[in-house]
Amino acid sequence: MGRDQPSSLTVLLRRLERLPGIGPKSALRIAQYLISQPQSEIEGLIEALVRVRQSLRLCRQCFNFADGELCWICQNSERDPTTICVVETPADLQAIETAGNYKGHYHCLHGVIVPIEGVGPDDLKINSLLDRVKGGRVNEVILALSPTPEGEATAHYIARLVRQEGVRVTQLAMGLPAGASLTYADQLTIARALEGRREL
Amino acid sequence: MGRDQPSSLTVLLRRLERLPGIGPKSALRIAQYLISQPQSEIEGLIEALVRVRQSLRLCRQCFNFADGELCWICQNSERDPTTICVVETPADLQAIETAGNYKGHYHCLHGVIVPIEGVGPDDLKINSLLDRVKGGRVNEVILALSPTPEGEATAHYIARLVRQEGVRVTQLAMGLPAGASLTYADQLTIARALEGRREL
Repeated sequence: MGRDQPSSLTVLLRRLERLPGIGPKSALRIAQYLISQPQSEIEGLIEALVRVRQSLRLCRQCFNFADGELCWICQNSERDPTTICVVETPADLQAIETAGNYKGHYHCLHGVIVPIEGVGPDDLKINSLLDRVKGGRVNEVILALSPTPEGEATAHYIARLVRQEGVRVTQLAMGLPAGASLTYADQLTIARALEGRREL
Repeated sequence: MGRDQPSSLTVLLRRLERLPGIGPKSALRIAQYLISQPQSEIEGLIEALVRVRQSLRLCRQCFNFADGELCWICQNSERDPTTICVVETPADLQAIETAGNYKGHYHCLHGVIVPIEGVGPDDLKINSLLDRVKGGRVNEVILALSPTPEGEATAHYIARLVRQEGVRVTQLAMGLPAGASLTYADQLTIARALEGRREL
């Protein structure tokens, strides 16, 4: 962006461009929107950010987002604490919650192991997962990591450690996504759907 | 998003989703990024928004973004004030500035005429453009509006009024975009490239 732009705008654009998925053009579009709206719009956003900074933290048990010590799932006594679903991020947790049929607890790793980027097991919430498993109340750990090479390597790493504690480890089923056409499915998806075929 | 999420997060997500180009998933991704970074990241964004709210306004001459009364282009005595390039938004102005070969002034309409959405000429900065033209120092008005039906209707509307003041009106050339393949160009673009053909 031009070096002669108003400095307050330049600073905001640089800040917006740091956000995931926001490039220079979307940053300018967002800035333009905020400026063209009534003052209350930008004030509402500022207030929301201030509140999140003040009160939002990670749940000390599962590392989901929380306003207090424990998140709304860990606080909910109707959820089954003997099953832990391991996800990469709170966004993945939210995706599973939206599906609506899971009633257990979660554990957010906040990433996967990527040796090439220097992300090892100790950079993730893996030790705290093992502490929960060693606590003795857990019957099953469901691995719900992305079906990418890094996600699968991380799943195998965790599976080995959890199994050592005598706890059952499962993984989300792989197969054709709902509504997909077989014609356009990739080879690996079809291969896994075949491997995982079930009696009808 | 689940109604049981931390309320500070829910409020932030709703605010982020109001921004152009941000849906529920990107809002969650942005919130997650802000929370996972050091505090300074979210504080920097808050500060940038506060500064923009406090100091950013629209230039009183051309309605570009400005920190003071006039924007950096209207303040620059090396720019030619006899030529005005009319754009829809400050983002379009920035796109032309990035191209780098225009040395005149601008006028931001902040939209185009869209009768079906109730946006008429009085909702745009058209009267102020005519005031500038009537000021007598302008030789040429270049219309750089989007080649959409609404953009073209707005261009024709403005062109008529500017011509009445005896000032020359031009429009950006239409034709094949640089690097494009003729095979994949749409009919209208090819038709206009033919109409606008030039001696070589």
